[in-house]
Amino acid sequence: MVRSALSPLPRHVPLLRHGFANAATSFPGSTAPPSAPPQPQLASLTPADIEHFLSFLPASQVQASLAPGSTAQADLDGYNTDWMGKYVGRSRCVLRPRTTDQVSSIMRHCYARRLGVVPQGGNTGLVGGGVPTGSDEVIINLGLMNQIRAFNASSGVLTADAGCVLQTLNTFLTSKGHVMPLDLGAKGSCQIGGNVSTNAGGLRMVRYGSLHANVLGLEVVMPDGRVLRGLRGLRKDNTGYHLHHLFVGAEGTLGVVTGVSLLTPPLSPAVNLALLRLPDYAAVLSVVGTVRAKLGEILSAVEYFDETAWAVVNGDGAAGAEVERQVFGADTVPPGVNLLIETSGSVREHDEEKLTALLEELLDGPHVLTGSLAQDETQLGRMWDLREGIAEACGKAGKVYKYDVSVPIQEWQNVLSTLRQRAAERSEGLIERVVGFGHIGDGNLHINVVCGRYDKAIEQLLEPFMFELVESKGGSISAEHGLGVQKAKYILYSKSPLELELMRKVKAAFDPRGIMNPGKVLPAVAVGEERGGLEGVLQGALAGAGAGALEAGK
Amino acid sequence: MVRSALSPLPRHVPLLRHGFANAATSFPGSTAPPSAPPQPQLASLTPADIEHFLSFLPASQVQASLAPGSTAQADLDGYNTDWMGKYVGRSRCVLRPRTTDQVSSIMRHCYARRLGVVPQGGNTGLVGGGVPTGSDEVIINLGLMNQIRAFNASSGVLTADAGCVLQTLNTFLTSKGHVMPLDLGAKGSCQIGGNVSTNAGGLRMVRYGSLHANVLGLEVVMPDGRVLRGLRGLRKDNTGYHLHHLFVGAEGTLGVVTGVSLLTPPLSPAVNLALLRLPDYAAVLSVVGTVRAKLGEILSAVEYFDETAWAVVNGDGAAGAEVERQVFGADTVPPGVNLLIETSGSVREHDEEKLTALLEELLDGPHVLTGSLAQDETQLGRMWDLREGIAEACGKAGKVYKYDVSVPIQEWQNVLSTLRQRAAERSEGLIERVVGFGHIGDGNLHINVVCGRYDKAIEQLLEPFMFELVESKGGSISAEHGLGVQKAKYILYSKSPLELELMRKVKAAFDPRGIMNPGKVLPAVAVGEERGGLEGVLQGALAGAGAGALEAGK
Repeated sequence: MVRSALSPLPRHVPLLRHGFANAATSFPGSTAPPSAPPQPQLASLTPADIEHFLSFLPASQVQASLAPGSTAQADLDGYNTDWMGKYVGRSRCVLRPRTTDQVSSIMRHCYARRLGVVPQGGNTGLVGGGVPTGSDEVIINLGLMNQIRAFNASSGVLTADAGCVLQTLNTFLTSKGHVMPLDLGAKGSCQIGGNVSTNAGGLRMVRYGSLHANVLGLEVVMPDGRVLRGLRGLRKDNTGYHLHHLFVGAEGTLGVVTGVSLLTPPLSPAVNLALLRLPDYAAVLSVVGTVRAKLGEILSAVEYFDETAWAVVNGDGAAGAEVERQVFGADTVPPGVNLLIETSGSVREHDEEKLTALLEELLDGPHVLTGSLAQDETQLGRMWDLREGIAEACGKAGKVYKYDVSVPIQEWQNVLSTLRQRAAERSEGLIERVVGFGHIGDGNLHINVVCGRYDKAIEQLLEPFMFELVESKGGSISAEHGLGVQKAKYILYSKSPLELELMRKVKAAFDPRGIMNPGKVLPAVAVGEERGGLEGVLQGALAGAGAGALEAGK
Repeated sequence: MVRSALSPLPRHVPLLRHGFANAATSFPGSTAPPSAPPQPQLASLTPADIEHFLSFLPASQVQASLAPGSTAQADLDGYNTDWMGKYVGRSRCVLRPRTTDQVSSIMRHCYARRLGVVPQGGNTGLVGGGVPTGSDEVIINLGLMNQIRAFNASSGVLTADAGCVLQTLNTFLTSKGHVMPLDLGAKGSCQIGGNVSTNAGGLRMVRYGSLHANVLGLEVVMPDGRVLRGLRGLRKDNTGYHLHHLFVGAEGTLGVVTGVSLLTPPLSPAVNLALLRLPDYAAVLSVVGTVRAKLGEILSAVEYFDETAWAVVNGDGAAGAEVERQVFGADTVPPGVNLLIETSGSVREHDEEKLTALLEELLDGPHVLTGSLAQDETQLGRMWDLREGIAEACGKAGKVYKYDVSVPIQEWQNVLSTLRQRAAERSEGLIERVVGFGHIGDGNLHINVVCGRYDKAIEQLLEPFMFELVESKGGSISAEHGLGVQKAKYILYSKSPLELELMRKVKAAFDPRGIMNPGKVLPAVAVGEERGGLEGVLQGALAGAGAGALEAGK
């Protein structure tokens, strides 16, 4: 293998490490209606409510389109629309608190009035969890709560406002010799409160674990305005139920996360990144096992992306091939799929020895065709862009149906082929690409289905088909994106009726008036529930369900 | 530093890596009454209940001292008494199910009859959480549910019955190239279900994180007998609330954990262990920071134990000094405190280079007096025994009041000195030793107060004094042992009234009849609660509270 001269990459490789700033406003308009059921128990927003908010919040922190607010409804579009332009609410009131006390005052009023509340972070979610479904919810945007409260260098414990942007926190920590335990494409916009509320996974999970491993405590404003002050920052505390884990991944349906206490690992001075080209998916399965075994404690990411992902990021045909030649430093690069392998460690020479030994072994074997090792920070960044640019490139290529599933890695290829076959046979050309990639180190497959437009017929072709497929493999229909609006009604594909019942009990105990992020996570009636479980739905579902969907939807 | 010839250690160093097998029966008798409030809403056990259990359980799995059972009450002592002999119940019925279905049938009956239920694992707990407080609870001992259900070598996911012994699981995994993510002194007796239910921490947490990081899913029999089947074993699953985290650390008060799905890390082929002697605690603080920075990803344990711990394990005076000479390979070993540093990694040469570089730097500096590096498995095991033998040695030296607290490591020395001063001034010689040690890598200090006997006066001298002291440092009154019976009423020293309220709501939602492990974790009335919080309790508490306690108790 040649240590390739990687630069320069073509201009159209998006430099996506820096996130989706203001993306919400660049995807206006949508054809997909909110799928959540109406919430009749909630009150309607009135001018008197805005007046009350203005009694304790500066006018600059209140944006409302009903008197006495003076904002045009269109100016609220950015808060009402998710960044894909797929989910669009019509809230007439956005509040931007600066302090936990302000959030508490807001919640006290909303609780008393039974007003729905949507907590909103960086609005980079993918399932419509961060935007309202109707016009009467109050949006609490946490963006102005962006202060780092404390950092203890000896314990590595960081305490920060929920509205701190992930990348900002990481930059701060880097200067202190630490690093955030999570990393994801939206890092430039997403906020730590949103990360916690969605249990965001991303790229470093194979090394540092999920947020359940790293969140030590939370400050949460409960629906009635009382403040759960749980920012103790202790690594160990076995005094009663570990409540903060309930808010991790609750998508704002149990309370508003306003502060986060997080264990941050030491920065690894040595980071290495290798890109491998493999002939097929069978080779991937073999290589991933070897990588785990040989790199052990320094392995920090293993990412997979196939030929469709390469093409959507780098261009089809000649354009994509030119990038291949540059990246791999060879005149001819055989076709195949890709693995990105990152190591992070404390002694560069040791890591390079381990990685080089591994790569030499792999290149001597039948499973790796060629490879490239990043030589400096710039090359490392550009190599990561090949993987991190996929979602954005799909968004530019068309309208995207995103599936984020956990399935055993032995089944990834089956899932992708089944879906591609269905698209080819039944979508009548409406589905243009089925792009496959994901965090293969932890079994999390992403599938982006790229289409010319959002269309009910396509949705019906894909759903619940995808969920049935995943359920049949013993997987999860949402590995890291959450349920939000998109998947709430499909919860029984991954959870049992008893689990749903217990979740509803928790919801009723914490949010008895049902004001928190209405319509998200827990459906009024889940698919399968009315028939007492999914058995009826699943019978023969993979064989025939949805067969006539496209016709019906036309 | 000399790489010492460590063997042979004197015979009286207990080989405690193998746990507390049958320890429960070796500490009979107790003076400490159960401190939980009575549970008047629960029913009394009758012969008809035993008859019902015998209708679906083989006689060998039912031990009852009331007709139609034929067991002598004394034969139930082992199940009724915790291993320290401190907490003693009088249950007349012990059931030993072999399957989840049997647990379900048991719970269905107990729910219908409103009978209290105590789930019991290896009975190695330290706060009385695993034994009954009265005579009407049914003990469900999980010891016969000891099958490994599945292991996936490619993902590292282990699925096992709750009654599997920790050490058995570790031995099984080692043969597969993996390792349990937790390790503790009681490994030879404690069970994985109990580990999960108490969120056991132990020795590897600094490397692999808590059980919240590693438990992927649980099978739990709910109080009404329904089975929560959550053993999916997916690393990522964001579909609704992450319920299983509620059962981690709930000490059996929400349901009976019957199965565990766990992420197990790959076995590190290279393990190194160094013991350092430092002049004082100030040196420890400095060295721990250096150790973290230099060993990075291969650091797997940092354990602290002071001169009192050395003495209780190895003997006072000449006996202890002789062990010192052997362990450190020197004629004269200066007095001081001790740090045990373990590394685990994939390439032995790399780890030894890192560790040697660190040790050379430390021995050149002012903070380390001498040190020793284990040369083989035997020496490594014996060196670990110096640390792991402390709890058992204290138990042999007298009756022990155990405190397991989280406080910032900067405060450890203050906490120990304050307590020693109090013992010297006020215990009239009843307190013989205050032994300090702990997991300094994660801020978890253990204090064993060794006395000639259990005595109400000593308890009143120590409690709530210890809890006030910890609270004043922003710590937790139970880092890893849980609340059980011992600390339930003191929960407000580490949690707020709002947190307690939410915990009670969760308890009411999951266990509406209050039959699960009654009297544990959540007190009927917490200390401080009747006065609307702890403010009144804490005012001036450290100065004067408990001053007359010893007199009053005499």
